[in-house]
Amino acid sequence: MARAKTTLRDDVQAVHARTQDQNFDGRVRAVVDAVRPCVDGGRFAVKRVEGELVSVEADCFTDGHDALRVLLRWRAADPAAPWQDVEMAHDVNDLWRGSFVAGPPGRYFYTVVAWVDHFLSWRHELERRTDPEDIALAARIGAGLARAAALRAQGEDRDALTDWANRLEQDAKRCAGDPQAQALKALALDADFAERVMRYPDRSRETCWPDELPLLVDRPRARYSTWYELFPRSTSPEAGRHGTLKDCIARLPYVAELGFDVLYLPPIHPVGREKRKGKNNALVAAPDDVGSPWAIGAVEGGHKSVHPDLGTLDDFDALVKAANARGIEIALDIAYQCAPDHPYVKAHPNWFRWRPDGTVQYAENPPKKYQDIYPFDFESEDWRALWEELKNVFEFWIRHGVKIFRVDNPHTKAFPFWEWVIAELKQAYPEVIFLAEAFTRPKVMHRLAKLGYTQSYTYFAWRNTKYELTEYFTELTQGPGREYFRPNVWPNTPDILTETLQFGGRPAFMQRLTLAATLAASYGIYGPAFELLEAAPREPGSEEYLHSEKYEVRHWDLDRHDSLRAFIARVNRIRRDNPALQADWSLRFFPTDNEQLICYAKSTEDGANQIVCVVNLDPHNTHSGWVDLDLAALGIEPAMPYQMHDLITGARFLWHGARNFVQLDPQRSPAHIFRVHRRVHREHDFDYFM
Amino acid sequence: MARAKTTLRDDVQAVHARTQDQNFDGRVRAVVDAVRPCVDGGRFAVKRVEGELVSVEADCFTDGHDALRVLLRWRAADPAAPWQDVEMAHDVNDLWRGSFVAGPPGRYFYTVVAWVDHFLSWRHELERRTDPEDIALAARIGAGLARAAALRAQGEDRDALTDWANRLEQDAKRCAGDPQAQALKALALDADFAERVMRYPDRSRETCWPDELPLLVDRPRARYSTWYELFPRSTSPEAGRHGTLKDCIARLPYVAELGFDVLYLPPIHPVGREKRKGKNNALVAAPDDVGSPWAIGAVEGGHKSVHPDLGTLDDFDALVKAANARGIEIALDIAYQCAPDHPYVKAHPNWFRWRPDGTVQYAENPPKKYQDIYPFDFESEDWRALWEELKNVFEFWIRHGVKIFRVDNPHTKAFPFWEWVIAELKQAYPEVIFLAEAFTRPKVMHRLAKLGYTQSYTYFAWRNTKYELTEYFTELTQGPGREYFRPNVWPNTPDILTETLQFGGRPAFMQRLTLAATLAASYGIYGPAFELLEAAPREPGSEEYLHSEKYEVRHWDLDRHDSLRAFIARVNRIRRDNPALQADWSLRFFPTDNEQLICYAKSTEDGANQIVCVVNLDPHNTHSGWVDLDLAALGIEPAMPYQMHDLITGARFLWHGARNFVQLDPQRSPAHIFRVHRRVHREHDFDYFM
Repeated sequence: MARAKTTLRDDVQAVHARTQDQNFDGRVRAVVDAVRPCVDGGRFAVKRVEGELVSVEADCFTDGHDALRVLLRWRAADPAAPWQDVEMAHDVNDLWRGSFVAGPPGRYFYTVVAWVDHFLSWRHELERRTDPEDIALAARIGAGLARAAALRAQGEDRDALTDWANRLEQDAKRCAGDPQAQALKALALDADFAERVMRYPDRSRETCWPDELPLLVDRPRARYSTWYELFPRSTSPEAGRHGTLKDCIARLPYVAELGFDVLYLPPIHPVGREKRKGKNNALVAAPDDVGSPWAIGAVEGGHKSVHPDLGTLDDFDALVKAANARGIEIALDIAYQCAPDHPYVKAHPNWFRWRPDGTVQYAENPPKKYQDIYPFDFESEDWRALWEELKNVFEFWIRHGVKIFRVDNPHTKAFPFWEWVIAELKQAYPEVIFLAEAFTRPKVMHRLAKLGYTQSYTYFAWRNTKYELTEYFTELTQGPGREYFRPNVWPNTPDILTETLQFGGRPAFMQRLTLAATLAASYGIYGPAFELLEAAPREPGSEEYLHSEKYEVRHWDLDRHDSLRAFIARVNRIRRDNPALQADWSLRFFPTDNEQLICYAKSTEDGANQIVCVVNLDPHNTHSGWVDLDLAALGIEPAMPYQMHDLITGARFLWHGARNFVQLDPQRSPAHIFRVHRRVHREHDFDYFM
Repeated sequence: MARAKTTLRDDVQAVHARTQDQNFDGRVRAVVDAVRPCVDGGRFAVKRVEGELVSVEADCFTDGHDALRVLLRWRAADPAAPWQDVEMAHDVNDLWRGSFVAGPPGRYFYTVVAWVDHFLSWRHELERRTDPEDIALAARIGAGLARAAALRAQGEDRDALTDWANRLEQDAKRCAGDPQAQALKALALDADFAERVMRYPDRSRETCWPDELPLLVDRPRARYSTWYELFPRSTSPEAGRHGTLKDCIARLPYVAELGFDVLYLPPIHPVGREKRKGKNNALVAAPDDVGSPWAIGAVEGGHKSVHPDLGTLDDFDALVKAANARGIEIALDIAYQCAPDHPYVKAHPNWFRWRPDGTVQYAENPPKKYQDIYPFDFESEDWRALWEELKNVFEFWIRHGVKIFRVDNPHTKAFPFWEWVIAELKQAYPEVIFLAEAFTRPKVMHRLAKLGYTQSYTYFAWRNTKYELTEYFTELTQGPGREYFRPNVWPNTPDILTETLQFGGRPAFMQRLTLAATLAASYGIYGPAFELLEAAPREPGSEEYLHSEKYEVRHWDLDRHDSLRAFIARVNRIRRDNPALQADWSLRFFPTDNEQLICYAKSTEDGANQIVCVVNLDPHNTHSGWVDLDLAALGIEPAMPYQMHDLITGARFLWHGARNFVQLDPQRSPAHIFRVHRRVHREHDFDYFM
């Protein structure tokens, strides 16, 4: 099959060379002008999860009035995998559409081919012909096209096409006058024969989009996941004792009760002793201070060891098994940095940057200094060995059952490393999920997502007003980045205690959790600080926690009467029961007449599950106002009433028309999560109406 | 120099293969994430004219806090041409900017390189250091960097850098206490030395944007041109005589008086006699009917011949010469189609499509038939010879001094042909301009522009309301297509007599001309029909002219008292005197409170020339209203009055503030073309104020 591959460069020499080539065929007239989705011209993959529809658009046309046929082609990345062809349909303005369902996790490619179809062109012209002579002549031309198709056909089709060609030819010769011409036209336009010809198109002059565009398919949890972060050393039921992985196992029923499906643990490795930080990040640690889990490595081991106070590798394996039994996955923190006493520092001194005074360059961004942390030097002469070892860390934990990694500060490690390590790991383990913890500039965060990160932390923690939330989530869910950047939103983390939470009290925690859980299909909280309303900063103006678990062991009273555990469990249950909340792209905001009330909706593609949320953004005051739903988008008949079922309180409201009244007291329930029931009982539902 | 070229495909195998390659250097940490402008990922060229600024943006960053240096590189397409480097400056959010001035017409390439600059990183960190020990250590590191730069430097620079390194080293050793540290810091941050080091950067690990993006530079007339179309056969001063090219020469003073710089002639070749159309497109021609100039070719010759009734090739050469002497260029119509008696039909029967009844397929789009036109078959087996001959037609006329071609219906000829022929011709003749006459679907029009057309006809003729004009011209001047699609707008053509002109009378002609001439830097009219207000359609509802010159010779009375010649001359004079009107991208619309009043502005890049237009869009009624200028965009102090000088009437208005009143009577002058004078005389301009 001769394919016209267009060059990627509009260079006179290139055009000249291409057209002079013996294989160049100037008769290839179909044009594929653009194919979407496409990230950076095909440099990076678009992302979907298994079972999702991959909808592809292409701009295709040819010169003049001839008809095109356009195919969407896709295949698994394995070079031996066969191409699958899907006929694309013309929409408007030279836009063609086709789709396929994403297969199992892995890599795929898709592209588009188009050709000028002489049979289809002939048929479209014939439909508009009225003159008997024109019809007779067209029939003879059609006979020729049918004969050519017969030569490409097999078996029974070949015979049928030949017969048809003969009939057209004979009837055309005998055609004299309008009634015969009309019968001849009907024969020529016979739909069954058309279908038979279309099965054997002449694709000898098809044009192919020059790139095979990459598609990365993840498992469904990449799109919909509910994260709970806790410090294992703070899980002991007895105050004053260092928690263990066994304590974590005991905590699993609690995590399951709250409805989380990912339990994320900060680094569980031995903590460095040299330059160890004390409580509240004190420069000098007291003898009994436990240090930061992110200051990884000591004489007991490094990134592939478990902190002795937490337990053993066997304990870890037991935790993974027990969690999985409850539908919970363990996510590990991968922080590529070392404490000064990490074994790597002695074993591989050339993986670090040495200064003229014979010391290793610690992490610093003047005037800030992190003397307990040595970064790796990604410009090391020994970078290949460093890369291999870092990959090996991932592989070690994958072998211990971990399939989700939260990567610490990936934007401070070389980007080519991430592209390589994620590609290599996902090749072997396509089910693995990587969450990028990069709270940095937008283009840097997007680059990491393009390079392979499955999910990304976001700016959600600092988006509070209606304007901010609407702008940001519209960008996340409707902007071009949605093809590769999957948000995972967190109202708090061990590093981020926002002012909203510091000053908003319990209502603020409820508001922020509701927003996170309903605006994004993936969200997480850092607990038990969150459900226990921990709100004291280390100092005024700081977003650091006072008595941060990063530097000390805490003991939490999970049974406190003011805990949000029941509320969180309810919200996560709602997420689980309503598939509309398990994906991001359907998000739409609706106007309200009160700046403190935000209203938005999500729905499944078939419209069977519709959720409308209204959140009072003010933690201090009751607010009321009118919300203005887009009834057409919700599939509601303007004249019909509909029922709004608040899944938080269980209350049911009968609404009518687009504009409806809402009042929310933040002290009671700062939000409605409505499920929309379009059908309400009417008089004709009852016997006596008959 | 080791360059990290990123692959164009995010394919696991590709990433794996690349990283395994011996030449791959994982230590290349700078990232160039995007370069703009860029058409279809570099597949097609962006267009500029000679002397225009080519402003390039790039998204560049690296991991961590290190400093980048970024260069814009450009060169002429000639492979021997050297690269020119321009330092790019960081703006915000990882966006870098740089620019260069477009050179003489021809093809160019540009790209972006970036590297992590250790000297710059060290300097930025040092600026924030306060601790004396830190400063002393930093100075020693700086000495090392200076020494490395010295090794890359030449001559005097090398010595100076070595000296500096030594001083840093010595002073660092002696540094004890804060005053000495501050002096050392000042020495280390010395600006002259920094500049010297920066001249010899370590680019061994630079990263290069993988594409060299193409740039097509045209001569200035590609951007700013004023077209007049006339039928040479209608230029005879005596009614009833067939006009000649000599008559065209006599018409040149008139064309120059009106201020046009391109005189475009419909095909001047012999007209076919077979199936010739009669007056008003009658199916059968009378013996004295002259036929359509687009039915090209007869026994006297084809695309390389002059119609005997018009004169000879020598006459044509004389016309070109006479026109050029007046600053007018002759544009020829290239219509690749044949009358049935064109010599090609006998000489090259395989360039046409033959039907089973032994006849050639004429142009048709059922039920419409054009029996006097044979299209070329671009799927001919003999396509290479056809392409060569068609190219040869262009070359023939280029040799006769033609540098501007208006191409008839390019969208009905194969797209690969256009890419090839324009590339080949512009390679040899970079000054040639091609105008695409494709009134068709948007993507098709854009494709032709991408493939190389210099200018394109537009939908202007059918954009009449304020909303339509604002939307359309905002898209043309601010949308992504502006990089390659240069609009040329026509209020009328021999095929298009709009309803606006049919029913709007003289005011409509003035309005549409003013809009065309001020909204677009390139515009044209089909005259003398335009200035003589020709408005009768062939039949109601048709956009065809009654007694169309396409099918008959017309005689025009240019001296009619109601001719718009003086008005057109005035408007074209305004265009010539005001560079703001000679480019498209500065166009901005301002609000008015009357839907029939449209207000917009254009300015030169330096703001020295500012034009504000207000046009009454209603040909029937006087309209008044308030216009709301963006004073900041016009560089006007809000508190200062300014003068609006109407260049059409000569009237001067004193305006103040953003909101000002306008009234326009379409019977007198339906538009203001204001030149803005920011400076008005005040009391302190006079002696007695002192």
